[in-house]
Amino acid sequence: MSSGGTADWIAADWGTSNLRLWAMRGTDVTEMRVSDRGMAAMGGPDDFSDELARMTEGWPVVPVVACGMVGARQGWMEVAYRAVPCPAVPELTAVPGNPGGRPVLIAGGVMQATPPDVMRGEETQIAGVLSAHPDFDGVICLPGTHTKWVRISAGEICHFQTVMTGEIFGLLAKQSVLRFSLNGAENTGAQQQSDAFRDSVATALSQPHLAWARLFQLRAAGLVGQADTAETEARLSGTLIGLDLGAARAHWLGQQVLIIGASRLAALYEAALLEQGVQPVIGDVDAATRAGLWAAWQAYRGQTE
Amino acid sequence: MSSGGTADWIAADWGTSNLRLWAMRGTDVTEMRVSDRGMAAMGGPDDFSDELARMTEGWPVVPVVACGMVGARQGWMEVAYRAVPCPAVPELTAVPGNPGGRPVLIAGGVMQATPPDVMRGEETQIAGVLSAHPDFDGVICLPGTHTKWVRISAGEICHFQTVMTGEIFGLLAKQSVLRFSLNGAENTGAQQQSDAFRDSVATALSQPHLAWARLFQLRAAGLVGQADTAETEARLSGTLIGLDLGAARAHWLGQQVLIIGASRLAALYEAALLEQGVQPVIGDVDAATRAGLWAAWQAYRGQTE
Repeated sequence: MSSGGTADWIAADWGTSNLRLWAMRGTDVTEMRVSDRGMAAMGGPDDFSDELARMTEGWPVVPVVACGMVGARQGWMEVAYRAVPCPAVPELTAVPGNPGGRPVLIAGGVMQATPPDVMRGEETQIAGVLSAHPDFDGVICLPGTHTKWVRISAGEICHFQTVMTGEIFGLLAKQSVLRFSLNGAENTGAQQQSDAFRDSVATALSQPHLAWARLFQLRAAGLVGQADTAETEARLSGTLIGLDLGAARAHWLGQQVLIIGASRLAALYEAALLEQGVQPVIGDVDAATRAGLWAAWQAYRGQTE
Repeated sequence: MSSGGTADWIAADWGTSNLRLWAMRGTDVTEMRVSDRGMAAMGGPDDFSDELARMTEGWPVVPVVACGMVGARQGWMEVAYRAVPCPAVPELTAVPGNPGGRPVLIAGGVMQATPPDVMRGEETQIAGVLSAHPDFDGVICLPGTHTKWVRISAGEICHFQTVMTGEIFGLLAKQSVLRFSLNGAENTGAQQQSDAFRDSVATALSQPHLAWARLFQLRAAGLVGQADTAETEARLSGTLIGLDLGAARAHWLGQQVLIIGASRLAALYEAALLEQGVQPVIGDVDAATRAGLWAAWQAYRGQTE
């Protein structure tokens, strides 16, 4: 029997690109499994059921609590959004028929009507943060494909804003004419301490109308012999994160900021915010996800028992 | 014999995506041919030679005068940039060996050191405009994949700026999460008169730091039931063109503006500029290209005869 065999529930973060599963005993992780079969790789509800069965083989038949795009319209089962302001702890909805002979519970996302915005998965990470720090008052930044800036007060999600920073970085770096100047560079965070990164953040924040013009300059600088790949990457990353901070300035200015995200990307946002006089705290994204799913699961059992 | 059989030279616009050829008798077009085998479809110099032979079959063996990415590093033969300020009429460089038994002459592009920028092809269109209007003083806007704003004075290209508007529109509309709200919409120009387009241009110009945040709102608005496809397309187009105008404001403000571009895209830029109190004139891009190649060809013959 695998070490997951003592689990009494299973935590799942099922996003667009990946599935992350933890066999849990209470709040302790007994085993972790990761697959690249996210929502985008699924053809229909049966695929979700099959993938879950495959990935939990050898684990006990215990309830699964899942968050992320698994609850989207193109996911396993659409779970309605709650509207802000609302508590972070997500409400769970059971997939009918107990697939694989066990309850499968999916967390609902959060929406905002004005300006229009949505999240699926981040609300669970926020719930995890708040379960450890119930009095947190400030902004939680969740950088990624779609970076979220979420204002938290009195234990609730008040309002939030999404910026497509990670997705646009990927499109520009891998598919636009800038790819010829980047040689397939990833947003590695290797350049967060460079002058080029800091300079680009500052320019994008103070002159956002010019930042748009600077994108092609990154390519042209290479053609006229003024830049290398590492500097170009730092400038693209700095420009996009500077635009991101500028778009979200009303959220973070004068606030306590907590960054929950992958370590390299979190370090880039930290470096950019430090230049603006903000001293963010960085938290672990997987720990936040598990704690949020645990909080949701506890609340669900409290209601249904 | 085809109608191209009376040609005494051939004009060629050989860009990244297309090849446009005109069999010319002096300044008159006798026949036109278009292929989708642009620079991006070519594997090496021999491919350019073969494609030109295939596309000019039945036409007399007369000189070919070409502009565009055919002269880039990844093109048929790299032709050096001239630096601004410089006359618009491009200098021609002959491909060695007279491929296909005729001179093939390629126009060089123009570069700017500070801020770094480059063009290949637009200088020829500008030369064509100036051959008809030698006293033009103002800005020529060439919208497209990479929109150029070019300051012209005393018959010279003084300085210029490139904005990646068309390329970023294509990436966002076809490959980002916004594609789910656009259903494959093209930048058709159908929406240039809509309130949504004008409103988005105005917002991007006055609050560029917020325009970056508005991109995901276009997706979220669809998810919370607030937008249809046509409105979303108009808002994306208006936001990107507004950011473009904001990036280039120092170029067009208070200037006479001439737009040289495809009719639908030119109409979008015209509508956006009209809202800013600028009354641009629109010119035909193919006529400008042919006139510029003619001017370059005349200058070359004057030097070499």
